[in-house]
Amino acid sequence: MISNVLEQQTRESIARQPLLRLYGTEAHVLRLGYVELKVPVKDFMLRTAGIVNGGVLAALADSAAGYALSTLDESLPYLLTIEFKINFLVAAKGDTILASGRVLKNGRTLGVAKADLFMLEGERNTLVATALVTLIKRQNHGSSNS
Amino acid sequence: MISNVLEQQTRESIARQPLLRLYGTEAHVLRLGYVELKVPVKDFMLRTAGIVNGGVLAALADSAAGYALSTLDESLPYLLTIEFKINFLVAAKGDTILASGRVLKNGRTLGVAKADLFMLEGERNTLVATALVTLIKRQNHGSSNS
Amino acid sequence: MISNVLEQQTRESIARQPLLRLYGTEAHVLRLGYVELKVPVKDFMLRTAGIVNGGVLAALADSAAGYALSTLDESLPYLLTIEFKINFLVAAKGDTILASGRVLKNGRTLGVAKADLFMLEGERNTLVATALVTLIKRQNHGSSNS
Amino acid sequence: MISNVLEQQTRESIARQPLLRLYGTEAHVLRLGYVELKVPVKDFMLRTAGIVNGGVLAALADSAAGYALSTLDESLPYLLTIEFKINFLVAAKGDTILASGRVLKNGRTLGVAKADLFMLEGERNTLVATALVTLIKRQNHGSSNS
Repeated sequence: MISNVLEQQTRESIARQPLLRLYGTEAHVLRLGYVELKVPVKDFMLRTAGIVNGGVLAALADSAAGYALSTLDESLPYLLTIEFKINFLVAAKGDTILASGRVLKNGRTLGVAKADLFMLEGERNTLVATALVTLIKRQNHGSSNS
Repeated sequence: MISNVLEQQTRESIARQPLLRLYGTEAHVLRLGYVELKVPVKDFMLRTAGIVNGGVLAALADSAAGYALSTLDESLPYLLTIEFKINFLVAAKGDTILASGRVLKNGRTLGVAKADLFMLEGERNTLVATALVTLIKRQNHGSSNS
Repeated sequence: MISNVLEQQTRESIARQPLLRLYGTEAHVLRLGYVELKVPVKDFMLRTAGIVNGGVLAALADSAAGYALSTLDESLPYLLTIEFKINFLVAAKGDTILASGRVLKNGRTLGVAKADLFMLEGERNTLVATALVTLIKRQNHGSSNS
Repeated sequence: MISNVLEQQTRESIARQPLLRLYGTEAHVLRLGYVELKVPVKDFMLRTAGIVNGGVLAALADSAAGYALSTLDESLPYLLTIEFKINFLVAAKGDTILASGRVLKNGRTLGVAKADLFMLEGERNTLVATALVTLIKRQNHGSSNS
């Protein structure tokens, strides 16, 4: 279990990120090294064929990975995503997106997490994309040259 | 030069994609195998430190790559992004995002494009991220199992 | 379980690939959608600091992914790797490399697999790298334009 | 131009890496932030269809990226590849591999480089793969926890 303080900090951080707020993101599960974000699908997220835009899934993969890493360090270092890669496995259809993030490496400077993206629809739960995300921990916020 | 028909189709397609419309995306340059999209930075795109959310850059990289590929085929096959990878090079600060896409491979079934993301601010023009994007061409729209 | 025919074909294919033979690769586990390759570390694989060269791990990740996909189709389509991405998590030290491949998607045209790379040393078993691999299935061998 | 000292150090480093020596790698071009490695194709590099194994190209992409970064710092920090991604564009046929590496970012801690892989055959020069590589600079060699 993560501490109440960390849980509170994480929920506030999600609420403060404008893009995540625009998406209606909810912190569904918060454990040490693992998070699940839940997002109801909105019209602006859809491509013309009715599937969720890959850019929305990518943003959530990045966020889930970052929050998973942040659960492991109560000092809340500023995390910057260095890079990520995402594979889209099947067309993303459903009414809710669930983005899970799991830490694979928690180093002194670097973190690596995988993110899985699921579409929920009734009882159905389909893995639609998977990502690998690399992050760097910064002590001073907003430094531009890592 | 691309044909007027293709230019018209591409501009309409961008206007129809809700996420790109939400971003205020404009087709700035459209050439054979190369496009530039321009997006004014909006508040909802910013992280708390005042830098553009990587998820926004990733979505634009994906779109620029796809539109670059679509300029090479007037039959406008339905393009699905299979996967992409993006590196964030420096903190993305500025008032306009420019996303360029350039085709590296235009195969029968697959296309590969690189996308570069620049932040514009006054005279300054900074490369902030770079991506590689793989796409598949589908004849029947919305097929879910490639 | 995979059929005896498929197991035999896979072992012969590994034995025929010169790079895998040079590495001394053994098919350790072959199941439907999952394989493990085992490779004893040789001097030529080491970097000067005594850790296994990332290029060796990458080649094994690619191969493990491809063989995992090949277990799902007895007609043995020719598989070409379109792209892969690999994260190196910790320095790769040990006397044996174990590369596992697991299929995430087995489509008509495309396959996606993840590969995990472990270093074995006595009782120790350390995850040192993880990869995502995208492959295309070709009916005619050696076609150069996918 | 890079200094004679740095050029000498780089050539010795390539000669010391057993995998690069096994491949017969030659430092063809060494400039600030840019290198070209040249490798004659050998039988053990070929897949059964006569194309160069992607694992060989990946290893050379990784090396070209690392040496490109090393030209920018005469103190020769120990460079570790954090991750890379490679796209294979066309079947790799020819008698010589040319791997170019170009630095995109040279930060205090991190470097990012792109690598392009060409196959040479007579007058022909074909881009067959392209990669993005992220590296970390370490002061103490062989540290295992970045």
